[in-house]
Amino acid sequence: MHRPHAGARDTRDAPHRNERTRPVSTPNAAPSSPARPPVTVIGLGAMGTAMAEALLAAGHPVTVWNRTASRAEPLVARGATLAASPAEAVAASPLTVLSLLDYGAMHDILGPVDRSHLQGRVLANLSSDTPERLREAARWASGRGAELITGGIMVPPPAVGKPGAYTFYSGPRAALEEHRETLAVLSALDHRGEDPGLAMVWYQAMLLVFTSLLTGYAHVAALLGTAGVKAGEARPYVADLLNAVAADGPLGILRELTREFDENAYSDALSGLGMMAAGTEHVRDAYREAGLDDGLPAANARLYAAALAAGPAGDGRHPVLEAIRNPAP
Amino acid sequence: MHRPHAGARDTRDAPHRNERTRPVSTPNAAPSSPARPPVTVIGLGAMGTAMAEALLAAGHPVTVWNRTASRAEPLVARGATLAASPAEAVAASPLTVLSLLDYGAMHDILGPVDRSHLQGRVLANLSSDTPERLREAARWASGRGAELITGGIMVPPPAVGKPGAYTFYSGPRAALEEHRETLAVLSALDHRGEDPGLAMVWYQAMLLVFTSLLTGYAHVAALLGTAGVKAGEARPYVADLLNAVAADGPLGILRELTREFDENAYSDALSGLGMMAAGTEHVRDAYREAGLDDGLPAANARLYAAALAAGPAGDGRHPVLEAIRNPAP
Repeated sequence: MHRPHAGARDTRDAPHRNERTRPVSTPNAAPSSPARPPVTVIGLGAMGTAMAEALLAAGHPVTVWNRTASRAEPLVARGATLAASPAEAVAASPLTVLSLLDYGAMHDILGPVDRSHLQGRVLANLSSDTPERLREAARWASGRGAELITGGIMVPPPAVGKPGAYTFYSGPRAALEEHRETLAVLSALDHRGEDPGLAMVWYQAMLLVFTSLLTGYAHVAALLGTAGVKAGEARPYVADLLNAVAADGPLGILRELTREFDENAYSDALSGLGMMAAGTEHVRDAYREAGLDDGLPAANARLYAAALAAGPAGDGRHPVLEAIRNPAP
Repeated sequence: MHRPHAGARDTRDAPHRNERTRPVSTPNAAPSSPARPPVTVIGLGAMGTAMAEALLAAGHPVTVWNRTASRAEPLVARGATLAASPAEAVAASPLTVLSLLDYGAMHDILGPVDRSHLQGRVLANLSSDTPERLREAARWASGRGAELITGGIMVPPPAVGKPGAYTFYSGPRAALEEHRETLAVLSALDHRGEDPGLAMVWYQAMLLVFTSLLTGYAHVAALLGTAGVKAGEARPYVADLLNAVAADGPLGILRELTREFDENAYSDALSGLGMMAAGTEHVRDAYREAGLDDGLPAANARLYAAALAAGPAGDGRHPVLEAIRNPAP
């Protein structure tokens, strides 16, 4: 589901997501009307609760449902309506937002719901799962006469509805536009395309970088700790490293990697694969020697070893990217 | 050895490394004297060659040695002296800088050298290896009457001798101070302590973060590529994420993690371990589903699963850090 992402963004200066600056189009409500359409929220974990709170605060009639009904009590006290069943919940609003552990939970909850309740409804599932499961779920929804909007929300629950929050959406753009004003209460909208898997392709890719940073920094703290060094001593070095990698400066690592990936412009001249393979092995060995978990360092070492074994293809393709694309069986 | 690190730093505003702002102390040379002490460089890969070039350019008499002698030719053409043997090389200068694949290479090269040639010499080994191998090497050097300074240089060869280059050093501070002016030709000096393993503890920790970023971004490109999305579309998102994690802003991930690690201040309130474990599993499954290498995503998922299985200790210790400290046997 929705883990705390650090990528909260200021939408005002984000030219690469001009999607968000589109004018709000809500054909079902005059802009001057204070009446907000009803919306249903299914799944009242921390994220679903934060969403329901934001929608209530924006003046939407909100219907909620949760497997453990008692989780709804604070929201009911603030004006939400507790549905007696999933069927009643989806029937209550043209749009149902789902915030669950995975897509299997949606099937568990909505699978038994009669088609008559789902017909013509829009489901916006902001749970996480694999891209293929989103695509399957979109087909399932179509089969019930409903439309599925898929989404991955890129901030933690406390940031829902606040400036900087954004969500990767995919699926039918028309359905998204129909409910844009309601969904914009939760976060900025970043529609990545009609393929319903795209929201998760983007979400999982960003989550991989984010969780690798979290586990990477924990590894830094663990290794330094074996020598009596506090993480606080390392923090400025790590911050400088992240900024330098991201920056468009002389080293410009992200920029150069992007060029190598997208233009098949890899050259072994600067950073020999052999040196990278040896270096990542040394890092892995340092963790083993210290008796620490070596999962992350070993994964890096294996990948460089595979890239080295295959060797640069000679056509400019990046050997590390190619090693990811062609994993050892 | 020396991989391209992105952490090139401006030493002028680095209060956390006040080491570098110390006044140069070179007891063997009057500050006004143009005479530079002789220095030897062993190992003429890209990094060793860049070092020898920088030392020559700074006016040092430079003696070089390399297993493949022909690598020395361009340096000899610029004024370097090619030693006929490792023994002759270390005998030629009070300071010998080594830039090799690992510490085993140093033992291979200097192991047969007679003690009389090593006696009283300072060796600055800037090769990479595990911390324990550095400590062993320091004992080996002591046994030969030499002193070993250990170092990990944090920039790629082209950045040697340029502003922003820095090296983590450890080992005898007095020996480092004696040769500070010479070593400062290569990079800023950041002495982390007398324990000769410290240079590599720092180096390997930073290299882990750096290589995880490189492999993580390659994974981003690979997953997006399966949906026809170019890395160039993702680059601004990734850059924003890195900057947001590093920044001291509202989310301040590095700051909060540092506090949790150093003050045992973990709270499960914001980011439930269960959600992180489920999310990292979904990421791993997304890579498997797409037929991509899942080493890095699986390493993250395993670590969160282990942290979840152990559960928060209830005393504020960070469960992910503890999972790294207490790996499954």
